[in-house]
Amino acid sequence: MSHSDTSATVGTRNIYLETLPIAEAVDRARAALDRATLVRAETVGSHEAAGRVLSEAVYARYSSPTMHSAAMDGIAVRAADTFAAREGHPVALRRGEGYHPVNTGHPMPEGCDAVVMIEHVAQIDADTVEIEAPAFPWQHVRRIGEDIVATELLFPRNHRLAACDVGALLSGGIWEVAVWERVRMRIIPTGDEVLDFTTGPDPGAGQVVESNSQVLAAMARDMGCIVERIPPVPDNPDALRAELARSLDEGVHVTVLCAGSSAGSKDFTRQIIAAEGRVLVHGIQAMPGKPSLLGECRGRLVVGAPGYPVSAVVCFDELVAPLVAWMGRTVPADRPSAEVHLTRKVPSKLGVEEFVRLAVGRVGNRLVGTPLGRGAGNITTLSRAQAVARVPALSEGATEHDVLRARLTVPEAVLDSILVCVGSHDNTLDVLADELMGGERPFRLISTHVGSMGGITALRGGSCHFAGAHLFDPETGDFNFPFLDKYLPDMDVRVVNLAIRHQGLIVAAGNPKNINGVEDLARSDVRFINRQRGAGTRILLDWHLGQAGIAPSLVQGYDKEEFTHMAVAVNVLTGAADCGLGIHAAARALGLDFVPLARERYDIVIPAAHMDDVRVQAVLALLRDERFLKRVEAMGGYETTLSGRVMEKGMGLGG
Amino acid sequence: MSHSDTSATVGTRNIYLETLPIAEAVDRARAALDRATLVRAETVGSHEAAGRVLSEAVYARYSSPTMHSAAMDGIAVRAADTFAAREGHPVALRRGEGYHPVNTGHPMPEGCDAVVMIEHVAQIDADTVEIEAPAFPWQHVRRIGEDIVATELLFPRNHRLAACDVGALLSGGIWEVAVWERVRMRIIPTGDEVLDFTTGPDPGAGQVVESNSQVLAAMARDMGCIVERIPPVPDNPDALRAELARSLDEGVHVTVLCAGSSAGSKDFTRQIIAAEGRVLVHGIQAMPGKPSLLGECRGRLVVGAPGYPVSAVVCFDELVAPLVAWMGRTVPADRPSAEVHLTRKVPSKLGVEEFVRLAVGRVGNRLVGTPLGRGAGNITTLSRAQAVARVPALSEGATEHDVLRARLTVPEAVLDSILVCVGSHDNTLDVLADELMGGERPFRLISTHVGSMGGITALRGGSCHFAGAHLFDPETGDFNFPFLDKYLPDMDVRVVNLAIRHQGLIVAAGNPKNINGVEDLARSDVRFINRQRGAGTRILLDWHLGQAGIAPSLVQGYDKEEFTHMAVAVNVLTGAADCGLGIHAAARALGLDFVPLARERYDIVIPAAHMDDVRVQAVLALLRDERFLKRVEAMGGYETTLSGRVMEKGMGLGG
Repeated sequence: MSHSDTSATVGTRNIYLETLPIAEAVDRARAALDRATLVRAETVGSHEAAGRVLSEAVYARYSSPTMHSAAMDGIAVRAADTFAAREGHPVALRRGEGYHPVNTGHPMPEGCDAVVMIEHVAQIDADTVEIEAPAFPWQHVRRIGEDIVATELLFPRNHRLAACDVGALLSGGIWEVAVWERVRMRIIPTGDEVLDFTTGPDPGAGQVVESNSQVLAAMARDMGCIVERIPPVPDNPDALRAELARSLDEGVHVTVLCAGSSAGSKDFTRQIIAAEGRVLVHGIQAMPGKPSLLGECRGRLVVGAPGYPVSAVVCFDELVAPLVAWMGRTVPADRPSAEVHLTRKVPSKLGVEEFVRLAVGRVGNRLVGTPLGRGAGNITTLSRAQAVARVPALSEGATEHDVLRARLTVPEAVLDSILVCVGSHDNTLDVLADELMGGERPFRLISTHVGSMGGITALRGGSCHFAGAHLFDPETGDFNFPFLDKYLPDMDVRVVNLAIRHQGLIVAAGNPKNINGVEDLARSDVRFINRQRGAGTRILLDWHLGQAGIAPSLVQGYDKEEFTHMAVAVNVLTGAADCGLGIHAAARALGLDFVPLARERYDIVIPAAHMDDVRVQAVLALLRDERFLKRVEAMGGYETTLSGRVMEKGMGLGG
Repeated sequence: MSHSDTSATVGTRNIYLETLPIAEAVDRARAALDRATLVRAETVGSHEAAGRVLSEAVYARYSSPTMHSAAMDGIAVRAADTFAAREGHPVALRRGEGYHPVNTGHPMPEGCDAVVMIEHVAQIDADTVEIEAPAFPWQHVRRIGEDIVATELLFPRNHRLAACDVGALLSGGIWEVAVWERVRMRIIPTGDEVLDFTTGPDPGAGQVVESNSQVLAAMARDMGCIVERIPPVPDNPDALRAELARSLDEGVHVTVLCAGSSAGSKDFTRQIIAAEGRVLVHGIQAMPGKPSLLGECRGRLVVGAPGYPVSAVVCFDELVAPLVAWMGRTVPADRPSAEVHLTRKVPSKLGVEEFVRLAVGRVGNRLVGTPLGRGAGNITTLSRAQAVARVPALSEGATEHDVLRARLTVPEAVLDSILVCVGSHDNTLDVLADELMGGERPFRLISTHVGSMGGITALRGGSCHFAGAHLFDPETGDFNFPFLDKYLPDMDVRVVNLAIRHQGLIVAAGNPKNINGVEDLARSDVRFINRQRGAGTRILLDWHLGQAGIAPSLVQGYDKEEFTHMAVAVNVLTGAADCGLGIHAAARALGLDFVPLARERYDIVIPAAHMDDVRVQAVLALLRDERFLKRVEAMGGYETTLSGRVMEKGMGLGG
């Protein structure tokens, strides 16, 4: 046991070998592995072979049809007997001599070479029929071997069988086929601090619930692998090496060690791979994804997946997926892509390929994409994304309004059901998002929270269907309109109220610091947590501070910013701050106390051009829906008296 | 038991209600079903939920990270302590006061608000470090709730969970989720004449191996259904109705009756659905696929799938897939499409939507597509296709050179690996196809058999990479060149020999009719089977007939045409003909006798423009490959002395 403890020393660290471009990393692993000995052939029933890849050519044993047969329900005839038939001059045929009744699939009786459809046959008596049109030879007859000729090649080796191919196999008399084994993968989560969710853990300080191995397992199953995931192994080189060795002993094709692939003092993956075999790649020129490791041990692939979830996904998408496809002799399914108009600048480091997650929707006649944050630690930047764009290694990034080709992570049809909302955050948007997905035709609300002013900017750029705003104008006592007049003078918009909401000071349960108003924010023992610049809530705070004659510099924490009400509340919950300004719903959701300060109007601002959009119409219908309004009221801190009403200038909180 | 026997009478037949456009048929079924009561919610572990659809919204229980934590390996510091650091003017920090060593993911020690990466830290002694650059506040710190804020909406109801979403669920403290049940389907094959392949049958006259149910089961599994397929049920209304009732009793969401959906005397599906519930749709305006049935029995969907395999697939693709997606509240995956240049006319009936299966490859800079035959009975028109085009109901078809948008049935990357060969058929092409798929970079050979002259036409139209030809010119004694000079005077082509092959008369085993040469074809007791017009083999026959002074009209069966050597041989095998002209390999494969008539050169003709194509180069490499040549020789009836050599005018069989 050589458990290195970072609390004792900064420690010895690994150095990356050399970072490689992604394609080169994949090539290096291919060159190091012999797939012919790694992944073998096995025999499966033809009916279970869809999706599998043939390890050898398949030749038909039977022809299909096995004999000339009727292609229609009707009567089998000798075509020459019918040549005289004309409308009004029928030819009569006698059963057993001139005709034989047949159903589709029946073998053609000896001497017959055509079928007349039952619809064109007049039954005169039990044994006589008449037809009024000639049949041409081989009419409605499926000829022997028309579909498959015995001994012909049905499929070459390495063909991936589709569902319909099962029909060709069985029709050709092939009951079982030789296919390549499915790739077997074992995923080993590692780390002293990780908890296995199956134990129903409640993570303490410094602990995290292990989730990467489950994400990678789900991805590997999508690739067609047989996946085993074991419980987490501690950061202990001996234990880790023993697990790797067991995996190699058991003939697993791919072993994945989660985390420990970087250059930290507890990152043992590299040394373990080197001990059992050789390291092929340590570090790729990708962001996220850089600390990916590939190794070869006893002819098998060993992967060190980065610890950050988005990095681990990139490692799997870019390195593991092509290698698994190569081992299984298959071609990965298409990943559709689309041209997306960026709504914001994306900086990128020269020399690394950057994977930018984008929230995408169709606004007007173009797809707009909002970058979802670069942090490799944030799995929601993937789960909230509809597309991922690659910024090439030789670029320093992309700017607003650039058009990027991005790989879609949802079916393209989903993009047309997306509503893009940019602006202020409010919890009613979560209720709206859920209700919009409940209809017969579901719509997906994507809301990006950049504050009310950010929403107006997005409207100006044409990058959203509507913006959420609660901008209070102290001079007029009105909401939103003064700001729209100033910043969107040329755009025809409708302003519809979502709800009236209560803003106030969110304080710890029981209000231990006895904070009762904005005046208390100047106290030296009160630590405040602020919202970001441009947020309507911050404007409201500034107004209240001004009214109370308190300079922002007197407020401790005025410069600490959060982007949502919930984030402010979480700061209070954990004691990182004593209070912050936010909505009642956020306080209530976390069991915190709330000191009301003001009522305000939260409106959605919709360009007139989008008012007839079916998605916008769905929103407007919900704002008048009793059930929706009840859900909003049930959250507390909301009034729905104005909800769904078109607002006009000067209404304030009246209307 | 009311077993109707078509051998006794033409019988009573169903009449189609009214055929509906596809979209209308789907809508009618949706309107008749209440999916809220049909498909229920169930609870599954979050780690097993990828691919499933949420039946209710999911809100986060935990924030992620649960506290401010280090985003890098290094030291945690108070940013303000570092502001003075400059290159050459380091700031020294003491362990425990000024800094705390941290690894990625560690919670930030009390009072620290920044992390300095280990690469930028100089260790002076065990307890002292120096840094030469200031840290800004919150640098390399993942702030509480940065990824997920407790209580926020993670996913709305009806969201389909992707692999990465599993990570968001577990990070948000969600160990299990409520999802919609997977759609359960039972597939019931029917028919007196069908054999179950699991019994290892040897089909006799009028019998077929049942395969549709296995194809449909594989398709349904691809849609995410839980599928049960039972052994075939005879054409007996009581037995069929009992099976349907059992399926309804057991709560299966979708019951599929294979075949019996048409209007024949043994087509009971409609009356059975009517007896247990109601028929919603009988007949759709599609070809293939017309005799599709949809019904509702006890709130569940019942499908009558057509008996012809391609019709059954269309029924599933067009009706069942959208209904299953609707029941499961999901959006089907994208089916990529591409613009394909038609190489041949496709007639289509006005008023029906026609599904045209296309063999597609990229020739030059365009995708070319050759229609694969309209017969709904031929499953290989699907299994050999790379795309399916829809010809709309209001069109009478498409003509050569039209560009159709076709749905791809293979990944788009496969299209670039396809070699398109049009022309004469030869069994060595099967060997070539198999070997081409065996390389490190596999290529898929698609050969369409239209005879040697058809191949030259395809070359002229730019619709193939090469053509196979064995055109003998009696005047010069040369092969192919005289025809190329005449029909392709302006195209620069290379002619490369594939093999010398033996043509002869294929006769029954033991040669019971004692056929020994072309003279015997004029005998009144000899029935011949011919090849199609334009086939090199037919030209060879005509020459031999001419040499022997035999008029074609004297040859019985001269007007009966087959398109391949194997099809000719099968005619002889089954006694449909006594002999036909073909290659030795075809006779041998079916255990028939062979009367040699001539040696001929089978060449491939390659436009000079394609000679450098990597796919064509792979073919040329194989033609010089020892193993490939051995496989060809092992078939019998081939000589490989010229294989792979570039032919020149006047070489004949020398060279």
